[in-house]
Amino acid sequence: MGASEYRHKRRVEFADTDMAGIAHFACFFRYVEEAEHAFLRSLGFSVHLPGDGFAVGFPRVSARCQYEQPVRFEDELEIHLWIRKKGARSLVYQFNVAKTGKPVAKGEMAVICCRTYPDGRIEAAPLPASLDEKIEQASYPALEFQ
Amino acid sequence: MGASEYRHKRRVEFADTDMAGIAHFACFFRYVEEAEHAFLRSLGFSVHLPGDGFAVGFPRVSARCQYEQPVRFEDELEIHLWIRKKGARSLVYQFNVAKTGKPVAKGEMAVICCRTYPDGRIEAAPLPASLDEKIEQASYPALEFQ
Amino acid sequence: MGASEYRHKRRVEFADTDMAGIAHFACFFRYVEEAEHAFLRSLGFSVHLPGDGFAVGFPRVSARCQYEQPVRFEDELEIHLWIRKKGARSLVYQFNVAKTGKPVAKGEMAVICCRTYPDGRIEAAPLPASLDEKIEQASYPALEFQ
Amino acid sequence: MGASEYRHKRRVEFADTDMAGIAHFACFFRYVEEAEHAFLRSLGFSVHLPGDGFAVGFPRVSARCQYEQPVRFEDELEIHLWIRKKGARSLVYQFNVAKTGKPVAKGEMAVICCRTYPDGRIEAAPLPASLDEKIEQASYPALEFQ
Repeated sequence: MGASEYRHKRRVEFADTDMAGIAHFACFFRYVEEAEHAFLRSLGFSVHLPGDGFAVGFPRVSARCQYEQPVRFEDELEIHLWIRKKGARSLVYQFNVAKTGKPVAKGEMAVICCRTYPDGRIEAAPLPASLDEKIEQASYPALEFQ
Repeated sequence: MGASEYRHKRRVEFADTDMAGIAHFACFFRYVEEAEHAFLRSLGFSVHLPGDGFAVGFPRVSARCQYEQPVRFEDELEIHLWIRKKGARSLVYQFNVAKTGKPVAKGEMAVICCRTYPDGRIEAAPLPASLDEKIEQASYPALEFQ
Repeated sequence: MGASEYRHKRRVEFADTDMAGIAHFACFFRYVEEAEHAFLRSLGFSVHLPGDGFAVGFPRVSARCQYEQPVRFEDELEIHLWIRKKGARSLVYQFNVAKTGKPVAKGEMAVICCRTYPDGRIEAAPLPASLDEKIEQASYPALEFQ
Repeated sequence: MGASEYRHKRRVEFADTDMAGIAHFACFFRYVEEAEHAFLRSLGFSVHLPGDGFAVGFPRVSARCQYEQPVRFEDELEIHLWIRKKGARSLVYQFNVAKTGKPVAKGEMAVICCRTYPDGRIEAAPLPASLDEKIEQASYPALEFQ
């Protein structure tokens, strides 16, 4: 049975805040991507491993986040990320972000498996077998967004 | 009749790229926020103008982006932003991002008008009258997202 | 005897890389600031704690970094930060950054203790007593820069 | 006679600010790099142009900035950048940052010309002839740093 979810802890850093005194909204996308990469790393897989004359990566097709509570400098966040859909060449993640157990944000991120060639060409490709066999869809109900 | 849309040009900078050789997906949210602030500035309104013992800002309630084409260092982007919904205390923007006329991304961002007090308290508030009277909903059809 | 140094671990994240395939040089300043704040936090002190009608912070007076080796996605860095000079209202930090024991960067950062008032005014102020009594200069020799 | 300096305008964006209400210090390094790339672009040269099986770039060897005045959201900055030293494989830039004519920061950035190969290898290389012939050292006196 494959892995389907991951929990990642992350502190809000000073540079992440803005003049409103809260973490800038775009930072959440970085936090979630960090959780995604920590998830893949936990499976022995690294985004952008050099392949056979190409590198494998996961450009985003879409990303969304719904913000429920502001978070502030030094807040410890837990990002809970899971695979909502697993396709032949793509993954859809959903995620919750919580602060001391209280939800602060939720969202979704769809990625497509791609090969990048030295000349800059990018093309879609199947999930690498070494990753494919280790992951599966989570059984969490779909998040609802307003 | 109020303003309902804005077009903002922005170059992809080197620091915006990632090791896949393209602009990092989270940068688009910064680009769109820059367009939003340029729009407000064009109306003589500044986010976070000191109010009467408080500052007025527009924290994000939600943000989404759908990526259609990767963009690269030095690409010139045009962000077309419009007011999709105008509420008493909130605005929903939609946007297209294009590179030399070709669409590369589209999305939506909902913001809520808030007052921030010196003690860090944040509370929802009506749109400032000076802004409210100058803006209105655009008549563009709603974007559709996959 | 007060604390004079701190060691902070930090992974290079994907968003930190640029199209040259390495961590963007400006990221090192964020990494070092994170180490600084982790150091202060380890002493029970938080940057920007609300004071008596003001907040205490440490704006930078100067910052420099010398880069010796490029670092890449997923590299684990150790930032070693120490107090080079402790003044009445200021601190000068120096730092080394290493990857698996090998030096990759070094630098210096001078900060000044300031109070920020609700009206935006910023003024220099003595180090808070609660911090002052807990820290002291390190005895490391001064770094030399080219 | 070659070009030796450049003036670049740049607004402080909301995402550049931090909870102290001012532009985060690390942003200045992005601003200066933007000025550097705008300078090179004005000469018809792009960082990271694909070469003959490699890409040419300018990794930083060192960077420093001295901060004289805080800058805030929507401030318009002028970055004045010039070539302090031109070597066979390297450039040292110095810069001033001003806000409505008043100096707010100054600094220095040394870069080395490098070739990046598809396998990730990076090696120093002479300045490309097409750039070399177009630039020269500026005659400004050296900046002094505290």
